[in-house]
Amino acid sequence: MLAPKLTVGEIEAHFAREFPQGDFGPKGLFKIERVGMGEALVRMKASDKVLRPGGTVSGSSMMTLADATMYVAILASIGWVPLAVTTSLNINFLRKPKASDVLADCKLMKLGKRLTVGEVAIRSDGEDEMVAHCVATYSIPP
Amino acid sequence: MLAPKLTVGEIEAHFAREFPQGDFGPKGLFKIERVGMGEALVRMKASDKVLRPGGTVSGSSMMTLADATMYVAILASIGWVPLAVTTSLNINFLRKPKASDVLADCKLMKLGKRLTVGEVAIRSDGEDEMVAHCVATYSIPP
Amino acid sequence: MLAPKLTVGEIEAHFAREFPQGDFGPKGLFKIERVGMGEALVRMKASDKVLRPGGTVSGSSMMTLADATMYVAILASIGWVPLAVTTSLNINFLRKPKASDVLADCKLMKLGKRLTVGEVAIRSDGEDEMVAHCVATYSIPP
Amino acid sequence: MLAPKLTVGEIEAHFAREFPQGDFGPKGLFKIERVGMGEALVRMKASDKVLRPGGTVSGSSMMTLADATMYVAILASIGWVPLAVTTSLNINFLRKPKASDVLADCKLMKLGKRLTVGEVAIRSDGEDEMVAHCVATYSIPP
Repeated sequence: MLAPKLTVGEIEAHFAREFPQGDFGPKGLFKIERVGMGEALVRMKASDKVLRPGGTVSGSSMMTLADATMYVAILASIGWVPLAVTTSLNINFLRKPKASDVLADCKLMKLGKRLTVGEVAIRSDGEDEMVAHCVATYSIPP
Repeated sequence: MLAPKLTVGEIEAHFAREFPQGDFGPKGLFKIERVGMGEALVRMKASDKVLRPGGTVSGSSMMTLADATMYVAILASIGWVPLAVTTSLNINFLRKPKASDVLADCKLMKLGKRLTVGEVAIRSDGEDEMVAHCVATYSIPP
Repeated sequence: MLAPKLTVGEIEAHFAREFPQGDFGPKGLFKIERVGMGEALVRMKASDKVLRPGGTVSGSSMMTLADATMYVAILASIGWVPLAVTTSLNINFLRKPKASDVLADCKLMKLGKRLTVGEVAIRSDGEDEMVAHCVATYSIPP
Repeated sequence: MLAPKLTVGEIEAHFAREFPQGDFGPKGLFKIERVGMGEALVRMKASDKVLRPGGTVSGSSMMTLADATMYVAILASIGWVPLAVTTSLNINFLRKPKASDVLADCKLMKLGKRLTVGEVAIRSDGEDEMVAHCVATYSIPP
């Protein structure tokens, strides 16, 4: 397996410098668990911000998590390109998540010069079945 | 044009009672501008929560806005069904929004017994061109 | 309203020369009804190839129609770019079409240097309600 | 691994009886290679109908293949439900396929009472990389 262009620590350092108020900081919602060439695993911590009455996690926070995980997978695979932007995102909500941490597992399917396409499987922590599945496209600046 | 099943005031009253911490409260991010049978217009207020460095609005907040506007259009069209849930959402980001309020204009394309499909056009306040376009499906409980 | 870069006759002449076996020929399934800057209207003729038992039109043929109509709208708007390719297509099937001609009405939402995004409303001939709705993205070669 | 509700032979027998002109007949474009509970693998044979100038396979035929493969996976998993219908289909075209047979590998992600969601990976025969990736939803009649 190929080594990523940026490690978890390097991506976190970039985020801390460039997006100090962002979701990846020490008090943020998201934590990068692992990266590889073409992939990333990100945890969303259970908190009042994302939990919903009825003991579940908001769909809105899962969309944000899917998009962020794809961004991390791109950075790990091509290096620091802060201007990569989402051009489209398609998400299917499959099951009601439980009120716990959620893990997003992104695999890039195409890493092109102009467009990158990936899929993100979202699961409740400790569960096998997906709660949501996302396919997103990023445009990579020239 | 048919009258909606619920007016803006009635929907706001339901939200205030059921989701008191939600985005539609007096200090919330979203404000319902108008509803009709099969449609809704919702404003997202410019604020630190949604604005991003470089003078734009986060894609994440626009996904949440699109989903919420679709929910309002459904409530206006079939009455109070709090358990309607998003089953899929597809969004295309078309242009960089300016750092201002954003308006989401939802039209339902199908209002079925089991599934409702709608599209949402998102524009910067005062602009004609869309910054994003979304198609979403909600499942309506039996 | 701006004039298109290519008229219906000019697009048909290009198709006849480049894709003589294609769907837009005199015996083909599709007929361009109208083009404008950023739009196209294409008819799919009822025939054994697209009709299905039960008196309806195949979903498969409507996907092909949506994609072809988007291509015509792009040619009308930027001129002859045969190498424009579909990068993604999202279609929602809303109602069962009747066993008749089907009309696809495409409006481009973004006409960028690299990506073009459009939506296509598909209706049975003579009907107001959509039977399907499609959003597609084409990549435009440099 | 669970056994499918219908084997390849049983599905082919249903298709031969119900859709004698369809794509799965002996002279048809498609051939079921394998089914399992929640999955199906279908081959699309290289032929003039699907090959395109420049030595590739039409996007249109790959959309039809993805939809048909998902249908086979549903039949294998819940038995003969001819009235299951596609409600949405989202496809990303990732690479230019070569002029050869194409294989579509469907895995169902959710097998619900009302909705079934699956993904389909499409590859040129003998290749590892996907040429297209599709996510589709079928509605299952009550």
